[in-house]
Amino acid sequence: MPGTTPTRPATAPGSATMRAVVLQEKGRITLEDVPRPGDPGPGEVRIAMHTVGICGSDVHYYTHGAIGGFVVTAPMILGHEGSGTVLAIGEGVENLAVGDRVVMEPGVPDPRSRAAREGIYNVDPAVRFWATPPYDGCLAEEVLHPAEYTFRLPDSLSFAEGALIEPFAVGMQAATKARLRPGDIAAVVGCGTIGIMTAIAALNGGAARVYVSDLAPEKLALIEGIPGLVPVDATKESLAERVRRDTGGWGPQAVFEASGAAPSYESIWDAPAPGGVLVVVGMPTRPVTFDTTKAQVRELRIETVFRYANVHQKAIDLAAGPGVDLAPLVTKTFPVADAVAAFDRGAEGRPTDTKLQITFADPEEG
Amino acid sequence: MPGTTPTRPATAPGSATMRAVVLQEKGRITLEDVPRPGDPGPGEVRIAMHTVGICGSDVHYYTHGAIGGFVVTAPMILGHEGSGTVLAIGEGVENLAVGDRVVMEPGVPDPRSRAAREGIYNVDPAVRFWATPPYDGCLAEEVLHPAEYTFRLPDSLSFAEGALIEPFAVGMQAATKARLRPGDIAAVVGCGTIGIMTAIAALNGGAARVYVSDLAPEKLALIEGIPGLVPVDATKESLAERVRRDTGGWGPQAVFEASGAAPSYESIWDAPAPGGVLVVVGMPTRPVTFDTTKAQVRELRIETVFRYANVHQKAIDLAAGPGVDLAPLVTKTFPVADAVAAFDRGAEGRPTDTKLQITFADPEEG
Amino acid sequence: MPGTTPTRPATAPGSATMRAVVLQEKGRITLEDVPRPGDPGPGEVRIAMHTVGICGSDVHYYTHGAIGGFVVTAPMILGHEGSGTVLAIGEGVENLAVGDRVVMEPGVPDPRSRAAREGIYNVDPAVRFWATPPYDGCLAEEVLHPAEYTFRLPDSLSFAEGALIEPFAVGMQAATKARLRPGDIAAVVGCGTIGIMTAIAALNGGAARVYVSDLAPEKLALIEGIPGLVPVDATKESLAERVRRDTGGWGPQAVFEASGAAPSYESIWDAPAPGGVLVVVGMPTRPVTFDTTKAQVRELRIETVFRYANVHQKAIDLAAGPGVDLAPLVTKTFPVADAVAAFDRGAEGRPTDTKLQITFADPEEG
Amino acid sequence: MPGTTPTRPATAPGSATMRAVVLQEKGRITLEDVPRPGDPGPGEVRIAMHTVGICGSDVHYYTHGAIGGFVVTAPMILGHEGSGTVLAIGEGVENLAVGDRVVMEPGVPDPRSRAAREGIYNVDPAVRFWATPPYDGCLAEEVLHPAEYTFRLPDSLSFAEGALIEPFAVGMQAATKARLRPGDIAAVVGCGTIGIMTAIAALNGGAARVYVSDLAPEKLALIEGIPGLVPVDATKESLAERVRRDTGGWGPQAVFEASGAAPSYESIWDAPAPGGVLVVVGMPTRPVTFDTTKAQVRELRIETVFRYANVHQKAIDLAAGPGVDLAPLVTKTFPVADAVAAFDRGAEGRPTDTKLQITFADPEEG
Repeated sequence: MPGTTPTRPATAPGSATMRAVVLQEKGRITLEDVPRPGDPGPGEVRIAMHTVGICGSDVHYYTHGAIGGFVVTAPMILGHEGSGTVLAIGEGVENLAVGDRVVMEPGVPDPRSRAAREGIYNVDPAVRFWATPPYDGCLAEEVLHPAEYTFRLPDSLSFAEGALIEPFAVGMQAATKARLRPGDIAAVVGCGTIGIMTAIAALNGGAARVYVSDLAPEKLALIEGIPGLVPVDATKESLAERVRRDTGGWGPQAVFEASGAAPSYESIWDAPAPGGVLVVVGMPTRPVTFDTTKAQVRELRIETVFRYANVHQKAIDLAAGPGVDLAPLVTKTFPVADAVAAFDRGAEGRPTDTKLQITFADPEEG
Repeated sequence: MPGTTPTRPATAPGSATMRAVVLQEKGRITLEDVPRPGDPGPGEVRIAMHTVGICGSDVHYYTHGAIGGFVVTAPMILGHEGSGTVLAIGEGVENLAVGDRVVMEPGVPDPRSRAAREGIYNVDPAVRFWATPPYDGCLAEEVLHPAEYTFRLPDSLSFAEGALIEPFAVGMQAATKARLRPGDIAAVVGCGTIGIMTAIAALNGGAARVYVSDLAPEKLALIEGIPGLVPVDATKESLAERVRRDTGGWGPQAVFEASGAAPSYESIWDAPAPGGVLVVVGMPTRPVTFDTTKAQVRELRIETVFRYANVHQKAIDLAAGPGVDLAPLVTKTFPVADAVAAFDRGAEGRPTDTKLQITFADPEEG
Repeated sequence: MPGTTPTRPATAPGSATMRAVVLQEKGRITLEDVPRPGDPGPGEVRIAMHTVGICGSDVHYYTHGAIGGFVVTAPMILGHEGSGTVLAIGEGVENLAVGDRVVMEPGVPDPRSRAAREGIYNVDPAVRFWATPPYDGCLAEEVLHPAEYTFRLPDSLSFAEGALIEPFAVGMQAATKARLRPGDIAAVVGCGTIGIMTAIAALNGGAARVYVSDLAPEKLALIEGIPGLVPVDATKESLAERVRRDTGGWGPQAVFEASGAAPSYESIWDAPAPGGVLVVVGMPTRPVTFDTTKAQVRELRIETVFRYANVHQKAIDLAAGPGVDLAPLVTKTFPVADAVAAFDRGAEGRPTDTKLQITFADPEEG
Repeated sequence: MPGTTPTRPATAPGSATMRAVVLQEKGRITLEDVPRPGDPGPGEVRIAMHTVGICGSDVHYYTHGAIGGFVVTAPMILGHEGSGTVLAIGEGVENLAVGDRVVMEPGVPDPRSRAAREGIYNVDPAVRFWATPPYDGCLAEEVLHPAEYTFRLPDSLSFAEGALIEPFAVGMQAATKARLRPGDIAAVVGCGTIGIMTAIAALNGGAARVYVSDLAPEKLALIEGIPGLVPVDATKESLAERVRRDTGGWGPQAVFEASGAAPSYESIWDAPAPGGVLVVVGMPTRPVTFDTTKAQVRELRIETVFRYANVHQKAIDLAAGPGVDLAPLVTKTFPVADAVAAFDRGAEGRPTDTKLQITFADPEEG
């Protein structure tokens, strides 16, 4: 339980080693002493991590040892949803100062690649992404990171909220790809963390209201209190029909598939309004069904989402704005000493768990 | 004064005439008995007007007798910002029923024109627009209107809010043209009705926050309480510099010029961020300055706004959503018997007046 | 054989009946005398048909009696790819005059529908489309048509080319949906009529060059002589690999699936370049495979095409431009007296046949 | 005169110095021996220059010593429109090999800047641009350049055509910004080099035909032979009226202002079609007139162009395609020994001169 475990710097700040959460191999996570990073190079910053969220991908590496072609073949530090404080800045860093509270975008491309030059650096094959083999993640006391992928956290946002910016950025990328026009009606399939993040991003990204469907009532309960989100119990009514009924038969301009469940694609193709868009956010593990006839007859556009590019600053700004409150999405915070327990809880997959986080600080401090 | 004047149907519902607010000529408005419209034709509805807002254009026709090439040469019923209740529906009308509370889009194009077929019917030269010579407006007990330009008002919105949808639609068109991405930072020059409407549309249309500048502190006071809007006193600081300072030197992705003041264009060209957009919402009465060099060096896009197309339903949906409250924008409501006084008040141009409205109902009922 | 059959007006111009090509039921086409259309109503024109192309859909109605939910339950005049001459104009028609050579857009929406107001009238469910049950087509001596869907043919284009504008418009819609940027590299799967039309539209719509693949060498031979089109024998090399090899590993920005063959979707998902687009032009008869992982990892956009909207004038202008020569795409022209033979030839599906046309004039005149 | 001056390597390939064309100060250009660049660093290539075009900006620095805020305060090598051959490649360069014929994009941004990450690196204030103070240009025997801004020249394009890619890229950027749809009608004001480049880019970038206007008949004569370009003598007819007449009153979807003449902006605002775009390509030296009313009534979009980003490869591909022939745009080629004469000829500003080039090779070889 947070607070009951005495929290202390696992290692002395200046020492040669530091504490990190390491996936040794499939099924085995340990809290290890690993070499502490050195001084930041040009354009880099060194960051003391404060809070790190547990992502489904972290859990999947833990339970399966791989995601698709990314296989864990050597011990790897987990975590890529992080917030912290700048400890030192390298040569040429002008946008940050020691002491700044920050969040980090976890993927760093080759800035000279063609994809990067075109502004779509997320699809650069050379991207180095935290906690994606063979790259270590940020569940460690300290990390080095490029300054241009490190963003100042406004005072109004806590470290816990800061560590939610990364998953929110996925929702932001989805909402951006939808090219919502102000006042559009949107719908999200799946009320998990990414579904909720997408719904919040869509609502604050221009939609008038967002219908969110799920098969699990306890998941829908998570969004009951959020104005502008309309829960739809998929066991009782069709999302598409519900929105059509509420919109004079027209339907939602944007539908976001955030469940990643292949069966969802059996029925989704007539959900969007004529000329609307389907945004593929969730990641089914196998190819799904594409009903081209249904898509063509309403000339749907389909957009696909892979992480994010150029949305972190916007995600922070929107999270600090009047319509977003990410804090309630944290279900439980674990001290780093309980990191293994945190991952085991994540592996349970409780439907009422939204986000689990691990903190290097006293979890009571927030 | 609202409430003190006894309100009654100016004429009996079934009678051949009805009460209307008529601009007889420049400087002279009268409350007249005019022929009541007949039965709605195919695709039309007949509407009992409830509330009508006074627009700057109505006042301008009153005080000047013309706007540009549009000259008042015959008596014309004023008003184009209206809400009311459906009295009768014509053949083939399926989206509306008698008794529906509604708002109307005041411009009706030739649906077979090239502009209409391309979805930009607002720039169809054949548009018939309420209270634009030679077409009568809606400041009358009853009007006929095409069903497809008549929209149901949700129960959560009052008739007063309904009559604000039309000016809000201008802001919506501006926000739509900006092609905001979720989390963008926006800025609006001018805190009049259109400036505020644009700011609210931009904020709820995707912006994280919207800076609004004006030279008049009493105008800025109107938005003090609205979360996400940041008032900037243009007599004390530059809007552009302020936003750049708050955004690490980058600036706002979208700047909306809503003052319509020609001098604004002397300094606006370096306000948007690199790759940003300037949206021309206000309508200067003479050509302004275009600093192409400043615009080019940041490769600005400039969008221009002419009324609106395909945004009324979205404006209603957004107005009914969690982030928008249009009601406080109504400064004062006049009974129709005091219509002339209402226009005289409008002609005063008090800086603290946002929207003045005229109602055919009891103004106390709302 | 064209020219050997003596051509004459099947019926006298002023008579009450005229000759038409009627699908009586599945498998049976006859040349019939049907009532001649009356005077054009307001906004309409009456047109003497000159040339009509045979579309795969016409043949499919002939051989199967239905396409999806559209079932032939009563005799129906075939044909929707037509050119002709204006015989008479209705009230209010200003863009056309008697004697104008014209082509017609075969689908007419309800101009007041929501889809039409948004400029996407092709997805209006109320569209009346020639030779789609229950609506008659244009394989008749005369037709009535709305003036706004009737376009003047430049002198430089023949009636045969005019009758190719409709299938070219499908390729134009595909190229438009791709949102090609000047100099993009494109690829088309399928070298049938629609594939070739799409390739020509893409090439002249901005692409630097267009690779076109097919399994049938005789189909690829049809484009051998067209500069800018690169035939790829799909039995010998992968289209995707070929383009990647020619583009330094990047791939085509736009891939058009124009074969309509479901197996094509087994391998197409990694064909486009990162950030690229897949345009679904062909119409598979059953749902196909969507490899979301492959699409996501390059953040593909997928666009779907349903006929066309607002492209006919552009198609005519481009066809009259320096880069397009549609004439060679006509394989054979039949006099209307041989209409049944023409359809039987269409039903053969010879791989070397691109477009078969039927003419009401002397086929030798062109 | 090309060919009469004996051409030889100005200096021995391995020597410590090389020949370069240096602007010493306003009004004085000399052919100098300057230090030869060293070995290419990581990601760099060393290039033997073959042909370099003279740009209006080079001439302007020569005749005025400055362009806006860019002032020549020290000797500077001129030239930024270059082609050549790779002499050596640095570590990590994979896209190029020694001996490759290449063209170079002359502006190199900070790849980690915000603008660069967003894909709009041309508006990064940190861009280092050839022959823009204080950076040397490429009118030298050899240059070092980043590999990712160096592009292979197809065999079908000559070095002279290669050296035209840079100005063509400006036209490409303009055509890209216009977001032309296939078959659009375009118009270009100004038939100078950039006007012609823009017209060719627009025509091959999707336009059906492009009207080009100028006040000088000898300039219009330069495009007489190019299919798809329609010369309009602005002394005899209005460009806007001409296009409207040819398009049934609608007008061009895109108008490109490429003259850079301020008076052009007095009359351009009603030239584009409703919903159309005005692209500001030329660079007026002082602010111009913006008729917002005319722009608003047709809801124009205005785009501005600053150099280019991500278009060089597309420009090369399009130049190698079937519709483009840049070669005739070279009016005269000077051997480097005659560089001063070449600049003096440029300073004359003969209306019949399109592009003057300087070559380090034998000008007769091409």
